[in-house]
Amino acid sequence: MKIAIAQVNTTVGDLTGNVSRCVEAVERAAAGRPDLILFPEMTVPGYPPRDILLDGTFVRAVQAATLDLARRLDGFPPALVGSLAPAGTSLPRHPNLHNAAYLLSGGKARLAAVKRLLPVYDVFLEPRWFVPGGSMPPIEIAGKKIGVMICEDLWDEGYPASPAKELLEAGAEALVNLSASPYRPGALDERMALAGRTGVPFVFANLVGATDELIFDGRGFALDAGGNLLGQCPAFDESVQVFDLESAPAAPALKLDEAEELFCALVFGIRDFARKNRLRRAALGLSGGVDSSLAAVLAAEALGPEAVTGIAIPSRYTDPRSTESAETLAKNLGIGFQAIPLEPLHAAAESSLGELLDSETGAENAQARLRMLVLMAFVNKHGGFLLNTSNKTELSLGYATLYGDMAGALAPLGDLTKPQVYALARWINNREGEIIPRFCLERPPSAELRPGQVDPFDYDRLAPEMDELIRSNRSNPALRRSEHKRWQMGIVLKVSEKSFGTGRLVPVSRK
Amino acid sequence: MKIAIAQVNTTVGDLTGNVSRCVEAVERAAAGRPDLILFPEMTVPGYPPRDILLDGTFVRAVQAATLDLARRLDGFPPALVGSLAPAGTSLPRHPNLHNAAYLLSGGKARLAAVKRLLPVYDVFLEPRWFVPGGSMPPIEIAGKKIGVMICEDLWDEGYPASPAKELLEAGAEALVNLSASPYRPGALDERMALAGRTGVPFVFANLVGATDELIFDGRGFALDAGGNLLGQCPAFDESVQVFDLESAPAAPALKLDEAEELFCALVFGIRDFARKNRLRRAALGLSGGVDSSLAAVLAAEALGPEAVTGIAIPSRYTDPRSTESAETLAKNLGIGFQAIPLEPLHAAAESSLGELLDSETGAENAQARLRMLVLMAFVNKHGGFLLNTSNKTELSLGYATLYGDMAGALAPLGDLTKPQVYALARWINNREGEIIPRFCLERPPSAELRPGQVDPFDYDRLAPEMDELIRSNRSNPALRRSEHKRWQMGIVLKVSEKSFGTGRLVPVSRK
Repeated sequence: MKIAIAQVNTTVGDLTGNVSRCVEAVERAAAGRPDLILFPEMTVPGYPPRDILLDGTFVRAVQAATLDLARRLDGFPPALVGSLAPAGTSLPRHPNLHNAAYLLSGGKARLAAVKRLLPVYDVFLEPRWFVPGGSMPPIEIAGKKIGVMICEDLWDEGYPASPAKELLEAGAEALVNLSASPYRPGALDERMALAGRTGVPFVFANLVGATDELIFDGRGFALDAGGNLLGQCPAFDESVQVFDLESAPAAPALKLDEAEELFCALVFGIRDFARKNRLRRAALGLSGGVDSSLAAVLAAEALGPEAVTGIAIPSRYTDPRSTESAETLAKNLGIGFQAIPLEPLHAAAESSLGELLDSETGAENAQARLRMLVLMAFVNKHGGFLLNTSNKTELSLGYATLYGDMAGALAPLGDLTKPQVYALARWINNREGEIIPRFCLERPPSAELRPGQVDPFDYDRLAPEMDELIRSNRSNPALRRSEHKRWQMGIVLKVSEKSFGTGRLVPVSRK
Repeated sequence: MKIAIAQVNTTVGDLTGNVSRCVEAVERAAAGRPDLILFPEMTVPGYPPRDILLDGTFVRAVQAATLDLARRLDGFPPALVGSLAPAGTSLPRHPNLHNAAYLLSGGKARLAAVKRLLPVYDVFLEPRWFVPGGSMPPIEIAGKKIGVMICEDLWDEGYPASPAKELLEAGAEALVNLSASPYRPGALDERMALAGRTGVPFVFANLVGATDELIFDGRGFALDAGGNLLGQCPAFDESVQVFDLESAPAAPALKLDEAEELFCALVFGIRDFARKNRLRRAALGLSGGVDSSLAAVLAAEALGPEAVTGIAIPSRYTDPRSTESAETLAKNLGIGFQAIPLEPLHAAAESSLGELLDSETGAENAQARLRMLVLMAFVNKHGGFLLNTSNKTELSLGYATLYGDMAGALAPLGDLTKPQVYALARWINNREGEIIPRFCLERPPSAELRPGQVDPFDYDRLAPEMDELIRSNRSNPALRRSEHKRWQMGIVLKVSEKSFGTGRLVPVSRK
C-alpha cells in the first residue's frame, strides 16, 4: 500500500489556483505509483475560509470546483481532498455545511468522511460554519480498508466520541488524516504521538501555508503500525511524497531545533502574508534595538533583502550608536536603509502643539506617532506594507503607542516574549556570524523617547508572568488597561499556544 | 400572577456591582408584591463575558456570587437570575458550562433552566463557552407552572428543538425569557411577535447596557395569552416594573420612531462605553462635515457638553466656512472647541519627507495622520478617549486613512451608511432647531485634502450596494482591499443587522 502526501499551499478563496495546484501535485505524485493521494483539510476552498462560507455563491463555486477537480484527475490514482458538503440542517444564519473529505476517482467525487469533532477553542470557531458529521465506514483502496479522519478527529480527548476507535472497530486497516493544524512548539511531536497510538499505519497530511495569523507548518508524515516513522514531508514548504506503508522504518525524524523552527515559522508567515496579499515590499523602523533588528533579519530572509527597507528615525534622544548599529545591520543584511531625522517634525509638533505635549506620555507618544508618519509615508510612496516590531511582552504590558509603534499590518514578533526575542537574535548571530550588531543585543532596552530612558521592567521576571496570564486566560490591570490598544493592532503571527489575535476574545469594557 | 422585570445594567466581570444592582432592584420590585422577579440573561457575570469564562477562578467567583445573591434575597419574592452552571462535559479547552437561569428563593439557588439553543452567528459564538442544555420542566410559582427560557430559546426557527413548544407540552401556563438581545432596527417587533405566538402570557426581560460594540436596549415587556401588550420597560434605561398577567391589555406599545431609536441607541452606546471604561471625557476632530458634526451631537448628549471637546484642524485646503461651521456647532452644543492649524506640521512634514509625500495618496494620508497626532496629543493631555467619526460606507470602500481618520477607540457612526448619517443629522435639526449648521449638511462631501476635492462617490447609489454586500457576506474588490485596515479599527457600535466588528470574521489574506 503506497500513499502519497500532497502537501500543498492553498489560498483561501482562490479556487482556480487551488485546483491547479492539486492537479500539478497529482501529476507529480503519479510517478511514484501511489494507491492513494492524500491532501490537507479544506483543500479546495483554502483554510480557514471563515465567514466567506456564509456566501452561498462561494459555497456553490467550491462544490463546482471540487467536481471540476475530480474530472481533471480522471485516469490518475484516487485522491482524497478536503471540501464542503451540505449538512442537511437548517440552523439560522449558518451555512449548514460539513467539513468533508471526498474521494476523487474515475472522474467522480464521492463523500468519504465528514469531520466529526469541531474545535471551538483558541483560533478555532468551527461550529459557526460546520455541523458535526456522523461516523462513516472506511473506504476501500487497493483491497484495504482505510479509515478517513479530518484534523481534530485525531485529537479526541475530552470529546464524547472517538473517530479513530470507531473506524478501527469498523475494520480500518490503516488511518489517514487530512489536517490544517497550525504551527506551535511541540505540535509535530503531539501529532506523531496521537497517530502512533492508534496501532495501525497512519498517514497524516497537513496544510502548509499561512493565512493571516495562522502558520500551517506542513510536516506531513507516515507511521507504521508500531508508530515508527516511515518518512515525512518538510516543514514550511510544499512537497509531494509517496510513502510505502510496508517499508522498513526510516531513521528518526529530522527535527529542527526550537530556535530554528521558530525562525522558519516567522519567515514563512511573513513571506506568505506578502505573497497572498500581493505585496512585494516591506518597510520597518530600525531603532538599533533588538526587536526591530530581529524583525529586519526575518523580513530580509522572507522577502529577499532587495524587497526590504529599514528606516532609522533618530531623534534628539537617540544614542548615535543606535543609528550606526541600524545602518550596520542593514548593510549586513543587504536591505535598503534610510535615516530620516525626527527633529524637524518633532520641533514643529512642539511649537504647534505647545502645552498639549507637556506631559511625559504626551511628549513620548507624539514622537512614536511622528515616526509612524514617516514610515507610512515611505509605504505610501514605495508600496508594500509596514512591519510592526512590537513583542508580546510589551504589548501585554501596554508599553506601546497606539498609532505609533503599534502601527503595521503584520506583527511578526507579537507572539514572542522579550526573552524569546533576545534568544532568537542570539541564535541568528551564532549561526551566521554577527549579523545583528553587538550593541543592539547588549544595550539596556530603551524606547529612547527621553534622555537616559530605559524600559522600566525586569523583563526576565515579567515576561513569563505575563505570558502565563495570557495562556491561562487570566488577567491583571496592565493587561486589561491595554486591551483597547491591542484591539486596534495589526495581525500578530501566532507561534505559541495562545497569542493576541482571534484566539483571544475578551471584552474591552469590563471590570 | 404578578411578575416584575428587573431591567438592570450589568457590567462584565463586576460581580460585586452586579449583585448589588440585583439586590437594589429586588428591594424596589418588592413594593409591588410580585410573585416572581425576572432578570436578564447572565445577570451575575455580565454579558458577554466571552473568554473570561475560560478562567476557572472567574467561574468559581460567579458561582459564589450567585449563592451570595441568593442569601441576600432571602425573605424577598423569588427571583430568576442568569448565571453559570457546570455542564458535566469535558470538551477540551472549553469551560464546559451551561448558560443557566437560577431560581433564588428562601436563601437558596436552584437551577431553573439551561439555555438550549446557542447562537453561533454574527456576534454570537456561544458554543465556544457553553454546552446546550436539555429540556427542564416548568417551575412552580404561586401555584402556576412557569416555563423558563433563555434568549435564543425563543428564536427557534431552523433549530432541531423548540423549547417553547416543549415547555407548553409540559404544562407551562406562562413563559418567561431571560435575554441579552442586542439592539437593531425591528428587534422589538420581532421579540414581541415571537413571544405573542406562544399563546400563553409571556414576560420578556432584556438586558440594558452596552458592552463594546453591543448595545442592549432593554424594552422588556409582558404580553397576555392573546399576545396583547400588558406593559413594557423603557428603552436604553434601567427599570424595575411589575406586570399583572391578569390585567387588561395596555395601550399599544409606545414606539420610538426609527431615527429617534437610532439616536438613543448611539448615545447610550457612547455613554456606557465611557462609563464602563471609567473614561470621563471624549475628544473628536470637527471638520465641518456631516460625520463629525453628527458624532459631536451624539457625544454631547451622551457625556454632557462639558465632557466633550471638538477640535478643528484646518489646513491650507480647508474652506474657511468649514471651521466656522465647526465652531458654530460647538457653540450650539456647548462643547469645548479648539482650532489648531495644521499648516506648521504640514509644512514641516513636506520639508522633512520631501519626495516621500509627492504622490496624491501620500500627501493626503500624511495630513490625516498629522490630524490624528494633534487629536491624540489632546487626549494624552486631557484624558478620556478619541471618538472616531468614520461611517460604514467610507469604511467599506476603504476611503479612510489608517492611523489617520480611522483612529479612535470608539466609532459611533461606523455602522451607519452615509445616507443614514445625513438622515440622522437632519432629524436632529428638525427636532431641535438648526444645531448642525446648514453648511455641514449642504456642502458636497469632501475630505479637503487637496484643492477643490470632493468625495469621488455617488453615495446614494453606492451606500446601499456596499451595505447589502456586507449584510449578505459577499464581497467586492474595494471591500477586500480595505479588510486589513478595518482589522486595525477601534470598536464600531453595532446598530444594523451586520456591522464591522466581531460579527464579521473574514480573512485578510485571500483571493
